[in-house]
Amino acid sequence: MITEIGFDADDTLWHCENHFFETQARLEEILEHHAPREEVEAKLHDTELANVRLFGYGIKGFTLSMIETAVQISGGKITGEEVHEILMMGKAMLDAPVELMPNVRTVLASLQDKYRLTLITKGDVLDQTNKIDKSGLGDFFDRIEVVQQKEVTNYRDVLDRHGIDAQHFLMIGNSIPSDVLPVLELGGWGVHVPYRHTAVFERHADDPAHDRFRRLESLSELPGLLAEIRREMEHAAGR
Amino acid sequence: MITEIGFDADDTLWHCENHFFETQARLEEILEHHAPREEVEAKLHDTELANVRLFGYGIKGFTLSMIETAVQISGGKITGEEVHEILMMGKAMLDAPVELMPNVRTVLASLQDKYRLTLITKGDVLDQTNKIDKSGLGDFFDRIEVVQQKEVTNYRDVLDRHGIDAQHFLMIGNSIPSDVLPVLELGGWGVHVPYRHTAVFERHADDPAHDRFRRLESLSELPGLLAEIRREMEHAAGR
Repeated sequence: MITEIGFDADDTLWHCENHFFETQARLEEILEHHAPREEVEAKLHDTELANVRLFGYGIKGFTLSMIETAVQISGGKITGEEVHEILMMGKAMLDAPVELMPNVRTVLASLQDKYRLTLITKGDVLDQTNKIDKSGLGDFFDRIEVVQQKEVTNYRDVLDRHGIDAQHFLMIGNSIPSDVLPVLELGGWGVHVPYRHTAVFERHADDPAHDRFRRLESLSELPGLLAEIRREMEHAAGR
Repeated sequence: MITEIGFDADDTLWHCENHFFETQARLEEILEHHAPREEVEAKLHDTELANVRLFGYGIKGFTLSMIETAVQISGGKITGEEVHEILMMGKAMLDAPVELMPNVRTVLASLQDKYRLTLITKGDVLDQTNKIDKSGLGDFFDRIEVVQQKEVTNYRDVLDRHGIDAQHFLMIGNSIPSDVLPVLELGGWGVHVPYRHTAVFERHADDPAHDRFRRLESLSELPGLLAEIRREMEHAAGR
């Protein structure tokens, strides 16, 4: 039986990648007189990947990478005003209100008495903590974990620390490599809810062929899925 | 008896603030043809304080604040090349080797069998984790805690989580407000080891008038202090 549910946060409980996407579009606009948009996009992408070892994931690193891209793509001709606008775009992202996915509060409220809920999110601790505060969702969760990576070892740490048996654990999130595969490997359930944009750092992964893998269109379908899994397991146990 | 020792990291186990100090001096040099050095210093200081709510503590936020200062102090006349140099200064800080304080390894090695050692450091988790890795000191510690603030509530969390009784706990660090006062308030021991530079975010605090407060010139004196405290307590208990 599933007794524990883990939730990814960015692009699962609330919108996130759309801010990066929109800010990047504005950067391409600002730099349009220096270089074609596709070139800016490609350069920013390369710069972000090259910087991730030093910057990690998050808005501050993204802002620094945008500035670096702007300097390079303009051959040093970027103006102070343009740099300032990029800086302000980064600050606006950090200060943006959190926009929840549809029905998030209803779904969490319906689950919180029947399951133990853990928020498991990756990234800059300050950014993530600020977003959890702004989301107003903190009280729904029994535990909040900000991890640096979402690999098997990180999930194992979280499960061990809270004495969670992986076979009773279901993780839901928008990333197959980060939210689904490691949990399947540990013996838990992995549920994928796709988001319309994918982060630049996200690796591609095919759908796993696994009987504890599921896909939902939206978080609203989670209570139904849990009921269905319960029925299936009761049915299997009854034979 | 003291059985648990907490160590601050930046400017206690290794040099840190000197990197900020030297980088700031270089920024003042770069901007010298736009504004006098004192003006740059004051502007950077104000910018850092204004941004801390969004940026938190750390090198990425510092780099963004340097760029913002450069744009403003130059009235938008900063060049792409200058912005690039500031960016590279930030990256060099992130990539800098960790320079240990004198005798750190010897002191930790002499303590690790007699005490449980906990590293308690504040700031960006990725920056701090990278520094701990680069320092090669990780294995001396029974536990490593990266906290977002160093206030009474954060220390209480750490002590509670590890079942540490505050009266057996001694914390050592370069900051009276962050490393000494909260631990004294919880009933522990607070040892101050001053560093030559003080971070811009650091509040000022007078020396506490408290019988569990001590000051050392360097970390090398810690084993001697612990022996002295032990003798005093045995003497008091023997009466």
